[in-house]
Amino acid sequence: MCGIIGIIAQEPVNQALYDGLTVLQHRGQDAAGIVTSDGRKLYLRRENGLVKDVFHERHMRMLQGNMGVGHVRYPTAGSSSSAEAQPFYVNSPYGISMAHNGNLTNAPVLKKELYQQDRRQINTESDSEILLNVFAQELLRQNALHVTPDDIFAAVGGVHKRCKGAYAVVAMLTRDGLVGFRDPHGIRPLVYGMRESANGKEYMLASESVALDAQGYKLVRDIEPGEAIFICPDGQVFTRQCSANPQYSTCIFEYVYFARPDSIIDNVFVHKARMRMGRKLAEYVMREWPEHDIDVVIPIPDTSRTSALEMAYTLGVPYREGFIKNRYIGRTFIMPGQAKRKKSVRQKLNPLGLEFKGKNVMLVDDSIVRGTTSGEIVQMARDAGAKKVYFASASPPIKFPNIYGIDMPAARELIAHGRNDQEVGEAIGVDWLVYLPLPDLIAAVSKGNTRLKAFDCSVFTGCYATGEDGDYFAELEALRNDEEQTKRDKDMAAIDICDSA
Amino acid sequence: MCGIIGIIAQEPVNQALYDGLTVLQHRGQDAAGIVTSDGRKLYLRRENGLVKDVFHERHMRMLQGNMGVGHVRYPTAGSSSSAEAQPFYVNSPYGISMAHNGNLTNAPVLKKELYQQDRRQINTESDSEILLNVFAQELLRQNALHVTPDDIFAAVGGVHKRCKGAYAVVAMLTRDGLVGFRDPHGIRPLVYGMRESANGKEYMLASESVALDAQGYKLVRDIEPGEAIFICPDGQVFTRQCSANPQYSTCIFEYVYFARPDSIIDNVFVHKARMRMGRKLAEYVMREWPEHDIDVVIPIPDTSRTSALEMAYTLGVPYREGFIKNRYIGRTFIMPGQAKRKKSVRQKLNPLGLEFKGKNVMLVDDSIVRGTTSGEIVQMARDAGAKKVYFASASPPIKFPNIYGIDMPAARELIAHGRNDQEVGEAIGVDWLVYLPLPDLIAAVSKGNTRLKAFDCSVFTGCYATGEDGDYFAELEALRNDEEQTKRDKDMAAIDICDSA
Amino acid sequence: MCGIIGIIAQEPVNQALYDGLTVLQHRGQDAAGIVTSDGRKLYLRRENGLVKDVFHERHMRMLQGNMGVGHVRYPTAGSSSSAEAQPFYVNSPYGISMAHNGNLTNAPVLKKELYQQDRRQINTESDSEILLNVFAQELLRQNALHVTPDDIFAAVGGVHKRCKGAYAVVAMLTRDGLVGFRDPHGIRPLVYGMRESANGKEYMLASESVALDAQGYKLVRDIEPGEAIFICPDGQVFTRQCSANPQYSTCIFEYVYFARPDSIIDNVFVHKARMRMGRKLAEYVMREWPEHDIDVVIPIPDTSRTSALEMAYTLGVPYREGFIKNRYIGRTFIMPGQAKRKKSVRQKLNPLGLEFKGKNVMLVDDSIVRGTTSGEIVQMARDAGAKKVYFASASPPIKFPNIYGIDMPAARELIAHGRNDQEVGEAIGVDWLVYLPLPDLIAAVSKGNTRLKAFDCSVFTGCYATGEDGDYFAELEALRNDEEQTKRDKDMAAIDICDSA
Amino acid sequence: MCGIIGIIAQEPVNQALYDGLTVLQHRGQDAAGIVTSDGRKLYLRRENGLVKDVFHERHMRMLQGNMGVGHVRYPTAGSSSSAEAQPFYVNSPYGISMAHNGNLTNAPVLKKELYQQDRRQINTESDSEILLNVFAQELLRQNALHVTPDDIFAAVGGVHKRCKGAYAVVAMLTRDGLVGFRDPHGIRPLVYGMRESANGKEYMLASESVALDAQGYKLVRDIEPGEAIFICPDGQVFTRQCSANPQYSTCIFEYVYFARPDSIIDNVFVHKARMRMGRKLAEYVMREWPEHDIDVVIPIPDTSRTSALEMAYTLGVPYREGFIKNRYIGRTFIMPGQAKRKKSVRQKLNPLGLEFKGKNVMLVDDSIVRGTTSGEIVQMARDAGAKKVYFASASPPIKFPNIYGIDMPAARELIAHGRNDQEVGEAIGVDWLVYLPLPDLIAAVSKGNTRLKAFDCSVFTGCYATGEDGDYFAELEALRNDEEQTKRDKDMAAIDICDSA
Repeated sequence: MCGIIGIIAQEPVNQALYDGLTVLQHRGQDAAGIVTSDGRKLYLRRENGLVKDVFHERHMRMLQGNMGVGHVRYPTAGSSSSAEAQPFYVNSPYGISMAHNGNLTNAPVLKKELYQQDRRQINTESDSEILLNVFAQELLRQNALHVTPDDIFAAVGGVHKRCKGAYAVVAMLTRDGLVGFRDPHGIRPLVYGMRESANGKEYMLASESVALDAQGYKLVRDIEPGEAIFICPDGQVFTRQCSANPQYSTCIFEYVYFARPDSIIDNVFVHKARMRMGRKLAEYVMREWPEHDIDVVIPIPDTSRTSALEMAYTLGVPYREGFIKNRYIGRTFIMPGQAKRKKSVRQKLNPLGLEFKGKNVMLVDDSIVRGTTSGEIVQMARDAGAKKVYFASASPPIKFPNIYGIDMPAARELIAHGRNDQEVGEAIGVDWLVYLPLPDLIAAVSKGNTRLKAFDCSVFTGCYATGEDGDYFAELEALRNDEEQTKRDKDMAAIDICDSA
Repeated sequence: MCGIIGIIAQEPVNQALYDGLTVLQHRGQDAAGIVTSDGRKLYLRRENGLVKDVFHERHMRMLQGNMGVGHVRYPTAGSSSSAEAQPFYVNSPYGISMAHNGNLTNAPVLKKELYQQDRRQINTESDSEILLNVFAQELLRQNALHVTPDDIFAAVGGVHKRCKGAYAVVAMLTRDGLVGFRDPHGIRPLVYGMRESANGKEYMLASESVALDAQGYKLVRDIEPGEAIFICPDGQVFTRQCSANPQYSTCIFEYVYFARPDSIIDNVFVHKARMRMGRKLAEYVMREWPEHDIDVVIPIPDTSRTSALEMAYTLGVPYREGFIKNRYIGRTFIMPGQAKRKKSVRQKLNPLGLEFKGKNVMLVDDSIVRGTTSGEIVQMARDAGAKKVYFASASPPIKFPNIYGIDMPAARELIAHGRNDQEVGEAIGVDWLVYLPLPDLIAAVSKGNTRLKAFDCSVFTGCYATGEDGDYFAELEALRNDEEQTKRDKDMAAIDICDSA
Repeated sequence: MCGIIGIIAQEPVNQALYDGLTVLQHRGQDAAGIVTSDGRKLYLRRENGLVKDVFHERHMRMLQGNMGVGHVRYPTAGSSSSAEAQPFYVNSPYGISMAHNGNLTNAPVLKKELYQQDRRQINTESDSEILLNVFAQELLRQNALHVTPDDIFAAVGGVHKRCKGAYAVVAMLTRDGLVGFRDPHGIRPLVYGMRESANGKEYMLASESVALDAQGYKLVRDIEPGEAIFICPDGQVFTRQCSANPQYSTCIFEYVYFARPDSIIDNVFVHKARMRMGRKLAEYVMREWPEHDIDVVIPIPDTSRTSALEMAYTLGVPYREGFIKNRYIGRTFIMPGQAKRKKSVRQKLNPLGLEFKGKNVMLVDDSIVRGTTSGEIVQMARDAGAKKVYFASASPPIKFPNIYGIDMPAARELIAHGRNDQEVGEAIGVDWLVYLPLPDLIAAVSKGNTRLKAFDCSVFTGCYATGEDGDYFAELEALRNDEEQTKRDKDMAAIDICDSA
Repeated sequence: MCGIIGIIAQEPVNQALYDGLTVLQHRGQDAAGIVTSDGRKLYLRRENGLVKDVFHERHMRMLQGNMGVGHVRYPTAGSSSSAEAQPFYVNSPYGISMAHNGNLTNAPVLKKELYQQDRRQINTESDSEILLNVFAQELLRQNALHVTPDDIFAAVGGVHKRCKGAYAVVAMLTRDGLVGFRDPHGIRPLVYGMRESANGKEYMLASESVALDAQGYKLVRDIEPGEAIFICPDGQVFTRQCSANPQYSTCIFEYVYFARPDSIIDNVFVHKARMRMGRKLAEYVMREWPEHDIDVVIPIPDTSRTSALEMAYTLGVPYREGFIKNRYIGRTFIMPGQAKRKKSVRQKLNPLGLEFKGKNVMLVDDSIVRGTTSGEIVQMARDAGAKKVYFASASPPIKFPNIYGIDMPAARELIAHGRNDQEVGEAIGVDWLVYLPLPDLIAAVSKGNTRLKAFDCSVFTGCYATGEDGDYFAELEALRNDEEQTKRDKDMAAIDICDSA
């Protein structure tokens, strides 16, 4: 997952981009970057770290101009390098910079094609550099001295033809304006908003609507799957559907886990969707075990609070904050002659003994991935004196890897891969395990927007919106092994051409 | 407020001190420091910043030895310098390092006395350096080649005689062991715990019991007001009451706001005390306005969640998380030619519109200090569509400054100073304002430990446990003005003698 | 002035490039950079500072591969930004990186042309980024999937047609090899050398032959004016003259001042050339003032030692080191409320009183630019007790600005601009001033290589090898004023797109 | 060797101390530090690195006040820690800071005594921290509220009684003024100078007189062996002989190698002393080999230039600069899987072939220590084409270790230890080796000041001014081995208590 943002305003945008990135920081804490343009030149700062650590006053002073693009990065499985911070930049044509959320599934083919056909060198392992170069090449093909909306939309159409996978994008042409677009399945979200300033209209593109709220932009609408938007420095806005066959397949995990509860994604309020998940969990419990003996519902902070609270109300059972989260987590250092000690969950969560002692507790989490953490938490609940420990997951069993930008482990590391619900429950040591059924999850989300017929639910079903199959995963697996080999050989992380860290 | 910790173990303590400080980080995010001893030499690292930013691998490798002391700093009003990180150190006698939580109220007198009588130069503006030198001088007076428990306790007794104010202390003699003590009123907390290791007993002293939990130390008990503890490298423990007239006056704000809910302070579980505050708030509401029309109780995150939840249950009204806290806050940069723009509360909290629209909401916060933030939040609730906005403070009106280590503004900046409850309510723009009455607050806390008869409630009452009066505040005010003048003259922050940042 | 280097070897080149850059450090202390290629990807590190400060171990580990290019930068007058470190990089076509020594005189025209004709955005103020893009565009035009020597030489020919000014260049194609070339006048130097390794032949390109010496490369020869060299990873070497009308116009200042004495430039040993300058100075003295009363010849360290020593021997007068140079120069800090204090020459040079007292001293320097320093040194000699002070410059009066990469002041700031020799002598306060006549200087250099008929002597004569005239300087002056205005407006140094400092 | 400085002025001294330290930088490039006092508080900055790297603007702004002390450190053999930068500080009594040049030979005894008798913890391995604590304890013993000159001189007298070895010291009492003193043998130099300012007299103490020159201080005189000076903030100066039996035993190596040629040490001009060494070398050659066939005299830069030039003149043989020194030396990095490669002398010196080809060359160096470098240089001369290579050392054979602060290897690593002159010549591969005889060296120096009867020549003779004998060296050797063992055990450099690097 990553967060992307673009602003085109009537005043300097550096602080606004910075503030917007902090609001999107939950989408990626790995690296951050901002590029701005004064209409003539670009100014770029990007580095590994949190937004607050990456940008110092000297960088902010340097980031001049009234338009710009920002990015926060979440490390995805395919990225072998730790230093490929975005936005990326190519100078030919026009000077284009780009921030990308998602993952291309045909990156190796595109990379080869870009070199052999277009003579473009790709210098990182990032599929985002590839996406940028495809867009650049498609735009160069229009061969315009002054870029028009038609040129932009033709280039995005070209991207849709060549690229496969998930991509929500904000790009900037140094002189000509901002571009935003989503892949034809709309897997990753992108919204835009507007505000009136004394000097004219100002626009923001962002992964989530919360980024608009904090700075007084009003949400206009989502960019549709396959659609592109082009905003000129003078405030003109152009949008066009650039795909022949667009269809909504929003990643349902945005609602389950990634997005902030106060965001509206594809016209669905995330907070409400999560409340509905909690209600449906409660209904499931009452259906499956009407005579349940749950004494208290306890969320595993932070995401599951919303659904746990609603679940408790629906069940008519008290809700209690039984785990205190340690907000300040440090490193575990390896001292000479010592082995690496595992950071236990106890350092992240501390149980409030009195909320567990002698009670039958229903723990609620948004999902179960590897199961290791869930197992440790269950044990903590028991150690704290719980009589029985039940566990509810606000999403169905995760059985397949994600290939659209979420860093999930390989199938074999997923606890629900090859295990039925009861086996998972035993593996994490609970007395009863409740998974929200997929139809319930879909209903909980789609109730907010009836246009949403389908979602990308591939981690539950193994059906991928863009049609990847067994061959793809075999290649992916092979590639990963190769990369690890290469990394071992080189004993280092490759560092991006533009990085001077 | 600051957090202090000391460990004496049978293995290196660097990682344990580091982990302990992250657990205490909520008590101070301004600076951090660790000093360790290998029984022959000290190793020290301290710097402004969060624990995770201050300690890098090279520092951890350097921090050798099986005993040590740590500190996280909260900037107190009296500290004019931004670089006086603790622990402090003096080499005469014995090499003593010290971490201090609290504030001395007779620091200027002591400073003069230390130079004129003991020839000791105090090189910072920190009262903690003064406290360390008083202790050092009292210990030197015992004139022992090998320090005994009697020497330590005599020195602590001397400190009690000379020093006035609040002090919870962890100190270390490079060769001889750890010392902990609390002022005779026990204003600041200090506990100790023990664990068995393969090589013998290990001990931890800490501001709060949560620091013990994460590493498997069992809470033994609180250090009593006026009491001192001395732990030798070989695991022997000595404790003694060193004050002629000790009495409990724990700072009640520890329960209201500072301490983590999962801590036990002077044998009272903070989480439970906060639940009782919420229940008493509800009882107050039902008493004062039985026919109230509250639709929903909404906490202002994070501290007030516990009391708000209990208040809602007691009232029989739904509890909802109506504000989403932005966990990642950045800076506001001043660009050339711009004025500093205020960081609005909107960048820290985002309201979930649907929880407010058309409802009468009861907002709950732990306290109201300046009232500015409360006022902005009330306005946000109205903008989000609330019909009526009520506000409950889990503590009484704050009318007086704190002089025991909490950074509170001068009396004239407190919104409740010179205003009655109704006037405060009007000032922050609510339809009804509820303050928890002081007897209710005291009852909510002392129910957990009947030995606690009195608390330091000076910010509510103006009665200071150590007897400071109007003269003291006049001097303090004068001193502050002087210091600001001096700072302006010098155009810089004075930097501690030992700082090489 | 800048220093450039390129190596293509049978083993990793990072350390060799680093060592080579330290040997070339005298050509630029402002910034340093290295780019390497492993045949598939580039690795780049560049930053302001000395070589030893720019490259840390983590950078060196990252700089993988058996070929690479390095650069040390000397800030030239035209460069408004302090952060445009080289090598530069474009990804289209092929991934080309480049290090450039010199200065283009038609940069503004090229920049416009690159955008309008080739759609290439230039994002810095550096003419080197322009030169790289011209080369890239000329190479793209050849449209080869696998680049051949013919493609390279055609592209260099295209560069010669479009670019005007001075350029010695080392470039690298990520997969295909190293390229070196010099402008058709050969204003800036470039040599190449070879060494045999166990695994095959290895090659180095460098600004000066000293870079070859330290690592056991044998000097093969200079790259000729207009000539290009292309070296493939397999060790094949191709050279071709790419200019229709090449001619030697080596910058004579390389011999006077810039190059190291142990370098051989265009087949002339710099040390020998400087000795001949000293001999000719002596002959001039004996011719003009046979009965001179010089007691001692004293060099102004370091460059003029060679010529001063030979001058003394020829005159039959003792040579003495009368000034001690302080090798460690620090900054002068501006404290609040203070004006900037000038760093006086006294902090750089200290006179040995006994060598001056009561003597008629002949001071020798390589040149006189603004005259300020010379004047201060003359005064120091008088203060140290010199009876009479004479001054010899090993080059003729500097009357015109340099436009080929040497950072010289505008004409009006040159002390010899509009002054005859006697007036200059009076201005710097000497009893007699001796300038080496231009024919003597030319003879001193060209004696080493009879093929050298002409030199760029424009700072003495105002005749520029590439034909710039009054119009050019008027535009340059206007541009400088504009830039300063822009800089003031922006209150900052523009920072290169790729810089993340 | 170290450089020390102290200034007491009528204006801020930060820039003056900084500039002074750059002038003394040749005495130590390992670490630098400055402490200043505004009469009430100290401000300290010290860190490993060159002066220009250690002090940034924020440090300079912090270093307030009109008096201060500075130090540059040369790593001495005994110092096991790389982070013990000076000045050191103790707060009891009075707040004393100190910079020390030299080495105590009874440090272990003093350290034990300080703890057992005075309860003072020494937290570093530095003998300078010990010296400071002895001085502090001796001063505390005077028990004055306001320190008088008598107190100071009594304390220095106490230091002379307790401490053995070499020490030139500048110390500061935070409120009371500057103190300087030299050990009773005056092994390390110390001078003081004065200048008149508009506001009164200002004073500087420094290791070498060059530090005075650059800032307009006039040399008053050397501090005598055993003497102390005390300068008050009001400009009063007090001096007194504090030793019962002082005598000049200046380290003769100051003249041979360490001091700058433009310094005057114990009233002898170093430049002149070196010229006399050169003359005596020539006389020795003419005496020993009247019919010598030397074609050219070539110095090994930089120190030996003075003596080589005079030697050449006396011999009537040409003097030539045949080696070019690379002023910019970088690191050799160890890449994964590689062994450390030795930095060869070729990277520091490059021979000018034409000065060697076919000639009999006399190379001149100040001294020969291990012989490794000399041997490599001789080989370079042969490779450059020299017919015969002779070698002159401007000092006698070094056969014994230095214990007064010069970092020399153990006896067994000295090439002249256990070898006669001819054997050394063979070992370094020369055709003839000339050592300046010790009486000639002594005569060359003492001619400048007839009061200098004796010098510390222990590295040549094994006779130590302070009487150390075989037992001392046996203990030293044992200690070194222990320390290395400890270091290996700990796998780290111990870091000073005050260091927060």
